[in-house]
Amino acid sequence: MNNVNELVGQQLSQVEETLLNIPEMHPSNLRNAVRVIVASGGKRLRPQISLLVAGMFGKQDLRAAIEVASAVEMLHTATLVHDDLIDGSLVRRGAATLNAAWTPAATVLTGDFLFAFAAGLASRANSVRVMSIFSETLGVIVGGELRQQFTDWARRRTRDDYTERIYAKTASMFVLAATAAGVVAGASEPQIQSLNAYGRDLGLAFQIMDDVLDFTGEQATVGKPVGSDLRRGLITLPTICYIEANPDDPLLPCALEGNCSGETYAQLVKRIRESAAITSAVAEAAALIKTAKQHLADLPDNAYRSTLAAIADYTVSRNV
Amino acid sequence: MNNVNELVGQQLSQVEETLLNIPEMHPSNLRNAVRVIVASGGKRLRPQISLLVAGMFGKQDLRAAIEVASAVEMLHTATLVHDDLIDGSLVRRGAATLNAAWTPAATVLTGDFLFAFAAGLASRANSVRVMSIFSETLGVIVGGELRQQFTDWARRRTRDDYTERIYAKTASMFVLAATAAGVVAGASEPQIQSLNAYGRDLGLAFQIMDDVLDFTGEQATVGKPVGSDLRRGLITLPTICYIEANPDDPLLPCALEGNCSGETYAQLVKRIRESAAITSAVAEAAALIKTAKQHLADLPDNAYRSTLAAIADYTVSRNV
Repeated sequence: MNNVNELVGQQLSQVEETLLNIPEMHPSNLRNAVRVIVASGGKRLRPQISLLVAGMFGKQDLRAAIEVASAVEMLHTATLVHDDLIDGSLVRRGAATLNAAWTPAATVLTGDFLFAFAAGLASRANSVRVMSIFSETLGVIVGGELRQQFTDWARRRTRDDYTERIYAKTASMFVLAATAAGVVAGASEPQIQSLNAYGRDLGLAFQIMDDVLDFTGEQATVGKPVGSDLRRGLITLPTICYIEANPDDPLLPCALEGNCSGETYAQLVKRIRESAAITSAVAEAAALIKTAKQHLADLPDNAYRSTLAAIADYTVSRNV
Repeated sequence: MNNVNELVGQQLSQVEETLLNIPEMHPSNLRNAVRVIVASGGKRLRPQISLLVAGMFGKQDLRAAIEVASAVEMLHTATLVHDDLIDGSLVRRGAATLNAAWTPAATVLTGDFLFAFAAGLASRANSVRVMSIFSETLGVIVGGELRQQFTDWARRRTRDDYTERIYAKTASMFVLAATAAGVVAGASEPQIQSLNAYGRDLGLAFQIMDDVLDFTGEQATVGKPVGSDLRRGLITLPTICYIEANPDDPLLPCALEGNCSGETYAQLVKRIRESAAITSAVAEAAALIKTAKQHLADLPDNAYRSTLAAIADYTVSRNV
């Protein structure tokens, strides 16, 4: 993605600077721990989308776009901190999480602190509409996680539940990244709708690929044990596709109630990993990427737009 | 406080309606549980302040003032939900808390959901400045709670720590209620500063009185065991005043490290309750109320303003 750096590399550095400029926290080593989490934040895909959208409308230098890009990434980081508490996962990105090092109370509060920081960044974009999209997104994310806490096993294996879940968890933030940047860059209402649809489809595809990689990746690459989602009772698209093709597999019933033995999980993960379910799931992601790119058609045709398309393509070409 | 109802009773009903109009949550009984918490929210002091401030500037019917009033109360409610998780307290307002009924994860998420709702209400006030004050306040509240988690015992018994703590926990929200309402009602910059000072002093006094009532109230009235703060290691003004007057009380050392026996706590609570520390603390609250009212002097002189003064007076006259 060299093109991204050529187009918005300078703005991405400003985002990085903004993100690491975490407000004073007490104790100061907590601030350092948070800084490590923020700094290890990967590719900054969400900020890239915001900045490219602003650039597509000729506003690549807009300060408000940098605030939006930073706010979205900080919101993403805040949800990761709470996720670590909620799912009890102690390993993320291969590093010990905050939750392993601190008390649950400190983890809750640190996540809250980052929500506040994210909201502050969003308010600096100086747009009521952005704040409204921002708080709506927060509601969708949290509402989705809450729903997940209380969804029964019969529903968790359905496509409807899966799509709702990954929209709330992932796609909503891509929608925020694209639409809020559109708002500050002066996009028209129909253009904002196109950005919304682009963000939605890209985000859904991104999460599907993440869920595929959970089966196909190596622990060293993804930083989690292979099949970790299934092992902790999370039914994702590869499993759903596998169920559709092999409804009578005797290993399924315990997995669909989240109580297999470790050995059974290992066997089932191997079966799914080696089945056609993987290619089916990837094909669904690819179809979403195709529609995501179609939604770009009505937007200004320039290098920024083609890079937004390239980002979409890249999402499904990640190592499977 | 009959005057409050005459002046802004109708608007308070609209706030109530707004607060109970909680977004759809899954499962729906969670929404009901949240509604019970919101509905049991007491006197709506913070919304009263917002509405009276708006009225003082001749804007008692302003929709934005109702949004601000609702946002502040919802933020207050969200922090109560997380507090219940953080301090492990299972009784609040005499009713079982969410935390006792649900998992910690559900409690965290429910608090987050209410934060999102509060932010959404604030954004409906249609003012970037309000959003900025709102997110700043959230940062102060959460930053204060975080600090509290990591403050050592030597510092917890200091007045500086106490004031910082109660500013973050309580007064900051009164400042938000007063200043955000001033912003939407068109107050000038110096007037907003006066509102800030009024909110600060009133909020500090309010929390001091709350801390006094923790010693002097009856369990049936305050809904918590007498002296519950001290028992869970929270050093408040009555204890600080008692230490100053009785530095050599042999019961103090264990209390200042949070590890007395139940019996020792009971004895110490009785001593503090019957000492001059109570009147000293009340006198400090009364002094803050006096300055809070002085800050009203530069604001429009009308029935709304005198009711804001009466609210301040009422705060220290609560049953001691």
